Amino acid sequence: MAQVNATVGDLDGNSDLIVAWTRRAAEQGARLVVFPEMMLTGYPVEDLALRRSFVDASIAKLRAAAERLAAEGLGGIAVVTGYLDRKADSQPRVGLPAGAPLDAAAVLYDGQVQVTSAKHHLPNYGVFDEYRYFVPGDVLPVVRMRAADEDATAVDVAIAICEDLWQDGGPVTVTCAAGAGLLVVPNASPYERGKDDTRLELCQRRAREAGAVLAYANMVGGQDELVFDGDSIIVNDEGELLARGPQFEEALIVADLNLPAADPSPCPSDKPVDAHDGSMITIRRLELPDLPRPQAPDAAAARSTWPRLPDSAEVYAALVTGVRDYVSKNGFGSVIVGLSGGIDSALTATIAADALGPDRVHVVLMPSRYSSDHSVSDAEDLVKRQGLHARTVPIRSMVDAFEAELDLSGLAAENLQARIRGMILMSLSNAAGHLVLTTGNKSELAAGYSTLYGDSAGGFAPIKDVLKTLVWELARWRNREAESRGETPPIPENSITKPPSAELAPGQMDSDTLPDYAVLDALLDDYVVHDMGAAELVAAGHDPALVERVIRMVDRAEYKRRQYPPGPKITPKNFGRDRRLPITNRWREPLQSQGTQPPEAPAS
Amino acid sequence: MAQVNATVGDLDGNSDLIVAWTRRAAEQGARLVVFPEMMLTGYPVEDLALRRSFVDASIAKLRAAAERLAAEGLGGIAVVTGYLDRKADSQPRVGLPAGAPLDAAAVLYDGQVQVTSAKHHLPNYGVFDEYRYFVPGDVLPVVRMRAADEDATAVDVAIAICEDLWQDGGPVTVTCAAGAGLLVVPNASPYERGKDDTRLELCQRRAREAGAVLAYANMVGGQDELVFDGDSIIVNDEGELLARGPQFEEALIVADLNLPAADPSPCPSDKPVDAHDGSMITIRRLELPDLPRPQAPDAAAARSTWPRLPDSAEVYAALVTGVRDYVSKNGFGSVIVGLSGGIDSALTATIAADALGPDRVHVVLMPSRYSSDHSVSDAEDLVKRQGLHARTVPIRSMVDAFEAELDLSGLAAENLQARIRGMILMSLSNAAGHLVLTTGNKSELAAGYSTLYGDSAGGFAPIKDVLKTLVWELARWRNREAESRGETPPIPENSITKPPSAELAPGQMDSDTLPDYAVLDALLDDYVVHDMGAAELVAAGHDPALVERVIRMVDRAEYKRRQYPPGPKITPKNFGRDRRLPITNRWREPLQSQGTQPPEAPAS
Repeated sequence: MAQVNATVGDLDGNSDLIVAWTRRAAEQGARLVVFPEMMLTGYPVEDLALRRSFVDASIAKLRAAAERLAAEGLGGIAVVTGYLDRKADSQPRVGLPAGAPLDAAAVLYDGQVQVTSAKHHLPNYGVFDEYRYFVPGDVLPVVRMRAADEDATAVDVAIAICEDLWQDGGPVTVTCAAGAGLLVVPNASPYERGKDDTRLELCQRRAREAGAVLAYANMVGGQDELVFDGDSIIVNDEGELLARGPQFEEALIVADLNLPAADPSPCPSDKPVDAHDGSMITIRRLELPDLPRPQAPDAAAARSTWPRLPDSAEVYAALVTGVRDYVSKNGFGSVIVGLSGGIDSALTATIAADALGPDRVHVVLMPSRYSSDHSVSDAEDLVKRQGLHARTVPIRSMVDAFEAELDLSGLAAENLQARIRGMILMSLSNAAGHLVLTTGNKSELAAGYSTLYGDSAGGFAPIKDVLKTLVWELARWRNREAESRGETPPIPENSITKPPSAELAPGQMDSDTLPDYAVLDALLDDYVVHDMGAAELVAAGHDPALVERVIRMVDRAEYKRRQYPPGPKITPKNFGRDRRLPITNRWREPLQSQGTQPPEAPAS
Repeated sequence: MAQVNATVGDLDGNSDLIVAWTRRAAEQGARLVVFPEMMLTGYPVEDLALRRSFVDASIAKLRAAAERLAAEGLGGIAVVTGYLDRKADSQPRVGLPAGAPLDAAAVLYDGQVQVTSAKHHLPNYGVFDEYRYFVPGDVLPVVRMRAADEDATAVDVAIAICEDLWQDGGPVTVTCAAGAGLLVVPNASPYERGKDDTRLELCQRRAREAGAVLAYANMVGGQDELVFDGDSIIVNDEGELLARGPQFEEALIVADLNLPAADPSPCPSDKPVDAHDGSMITIRRLELPDLPRPQAPDAAAARSTWPRLPDSAEVYAALVTGVRDYVSKNGFGSVIVGLSGGIDSALTATIAADALGPDRVHVVLMPSRYSSDHSVSDAEDLVKRQGLHARTVPIRSMVDAFEAELDLSGLAAENLQARIRGMILMSLSNAAGHLVLTTGNKSELAAGYSTLYGDSAGGFAPIKDVLKTLVWELARWRNREAESRGETPPIPENSITKPPSAELAPGQMDSDTLPDYAVLDALLDDYVVHDMGAAELVAAGHDPALVERVIRMVDRAEYKRRQYPPGPKITPKNFGRDRRLPITNRWREPLQSQGTQPPEAPAS
């Protein structure tokens, strides 16, 4: 399994990756290599799927990749890769072009595209809109090929794609009916923080259902708000873990599999089978010719298993990956961060330095008349610890210039300071080409405790899906990590321990406006991620007055979130395409349930 | 048909509308009144559909509305209304709660919810994500009731919902099978500018297919980016137009219909029928008891037909409606607009004044060292013509304060001026509670010819879907309209005729950076709305060098659009939820076609 980092739209670059990683796989003795879902186009391509020129290019590039592999002596390795295709004879559907797009997979071998298929189950929830783009596949390819050992009998390999594992029936069921020994599954499955090992459990269950070894190959890397975490998995037909890739890193996971011999008298090709999900799926069989192997493998270089990261390390790696890829894939050389001495900007700068190296991180200290001494000294301490490029721009003269014209007080005066800082960062970004990183956390973004075009200004927001309590946890974890390696902890202890303050007014503290973050974050998680109504929140033990107040804050801030920059999703529901609420919305959650008991429904 | 303006989430207010408009309908002699789709909840409710408390409230409020109608003496009028329901026995589906949401309609009569059904065809393209929220309905209610004339025999009325008309097969087909004489269709169909009368043609075609009189009742009003335009229609079973409501205005469209007598021996209830779309739909029949009519109708007050607006008037009305409803439904008392003397801000202010009255429109002139004399004089002329609240805030001292600290030049210096203006508007908004209206047009937004947090700052962007050439056209039309009524043209002629300039640098003209707007807009329309690839654009006659340059500008500006405020959609594809492209996107349109010919597919 080649767990690699594809880039959306970069068909040339992604094609190069296919050739380069297939060569590495060949060098390590592989006969079959599996790339992620939509490898050739990147994922998700969103409305590019509807553009004819883009689908044309994907199909042409797939053929070119097959030819190139053969030309470079790699035609004897079966390459399974995801790409974007179209269904020639699709029924017309409103919103889809004639020849509807397919989230497809192909087997490249002997210089040719040997067989293709398409994802059967289309996710259309959370961040996924696949019913908007694709029609479902209705074919299960079963490819007969010689096993690694030259003398071995043939084995049958079936192909499913990503969501096909997550829903009942479909390709997994038909794999069992087809009697395939191996089910390979290209994926583009984004990271979500979770205590359970959901994916492993899923692979184990589906391998048992399919009665086959299951190889789950996932993508790696960041794409706008999504971070693909790799963590590719192979389990045998009893659910035993055989191999597991690293998280958030490109890798070749090499496993020597003991597969059952293919039935010498298979059912005839193109047989439609009941997929137990209300549909029929056609089994399409083909046999790959034996080709000479290109070279003697260096099986000693092969690696099949990597350790899993603990929780904080995993979340932190997701944020670093998200920042690194947004910066590099969008062609930025450097980033700029406004440093307040507080924990949010300290963590953001630290993530950026870990992602890009300190030399590509520029910070700006922008003290005002309300800034405490420790704001400046803590920020300076962080700069020194990490060796960042720092600059100080006091905002007083700019605040004075505005106030001379506008006579502002209260909230308007507070926001003014935040906006002047946002403007300084944008000006320095325009002048030097840095990407501005926004430092707001999820608790603030939820509660609307931020200034539009002020602290919310920027191109990418590394911690927008991180609740404040997790911000502290990650900061402490990062410092401990450094200590355990004998390095200087990157974040000043005082930034972690001091009470949070926006310092936009004399003596201002977050606690003047917001409840204690531990209480707030628990409530936000239940309201935002679990979508509980007010009565459910109260029933779950949250204080009724607080429920009413916090829900109102969250609902009223929708317009601010709509204009917020993207940032890496790490929870089951982030602010972005995952949670879609109207701005114009007069719904007020009742604290008492309406009393309509929903009827019992079958368990999900 | 009650073509009314529902508000998302305002179940109490929407319920009041149902009662109030049913009373008006009763006063005009109606026996049946049809409200729009999702009338009780507003439309679209987006992720609120997934929240249990909200669905509970909708169901409870529907029952309460039926009871209230009866209590107020209106129980003898059959009321068809849209609301949000759940399917008790739905199959589990990932992303949906147990008891999946339904886009439903109900008949309220005699104090009770007599029958319910749900939309069968779910749109999942353009701005619609209904497969995310709903499961399809599979019932066609056929309600037998006494016709208006007391001595008449009974008539059969079937109910379909919105998209059920736009797709082939389904409820329309089954209406024919059921032999219903009238098909009523609640809609929430947003406005889109188009030269053809698509909706009327659709209603005519479906009426013929159903073999029934068809009554299409649409919503009115703005909801975030969508504007519902009313324009409700009744056609007979031969497609003849019987009634048509006004555009963009609430109205009761009263028609006295000559309906065929119901077959005295109908097929048994609950009969599943082939819907000719691969599904079965069950016909559910019921007969409403005759109830005494509440009062003698004032049929003279009834009106059935309104004239249609010409093209410019229609677009302008859509923009005015969008602004008025965003402002009022979000509880703002007033708006504020930065006035440059140019045409974009002049048109924006004029739309706002038409939407809210000049007394609720505040404008700010923010001249800089690069502002020409006519910038100020044209803006002042507009203020005088319309009687707006005006204030002048020269930006020089603020620019100087920033430049003293930052030493900016080129683009950074230009953006600085735009951002200072954005900040002044936001400060005045914070101080006085005005909503900031953003003045950018679609051509600028497409090409990225705007400053993030500068001229793009604000809460609502009235002309974000209006190309520059249409901005001029609307301005000229608005002035002519005023002249034809003997009023002062609201927009200074010089704002319309002078060459456009951002005035952020000495002698700067839009034409330094952008091609002629007539050429640019034609290209943008083909690329953005029609989603043509580069080779198609060249084949359509656009200059290849320009195609390459403009496409690059559009693609690179995706990050700016992601942070842009919402504004009314008037074209088949606006920037917003309608066009979803990745920010991180290395795809570069090839000027030469890839040569993959898509196969022929059946016509859509």
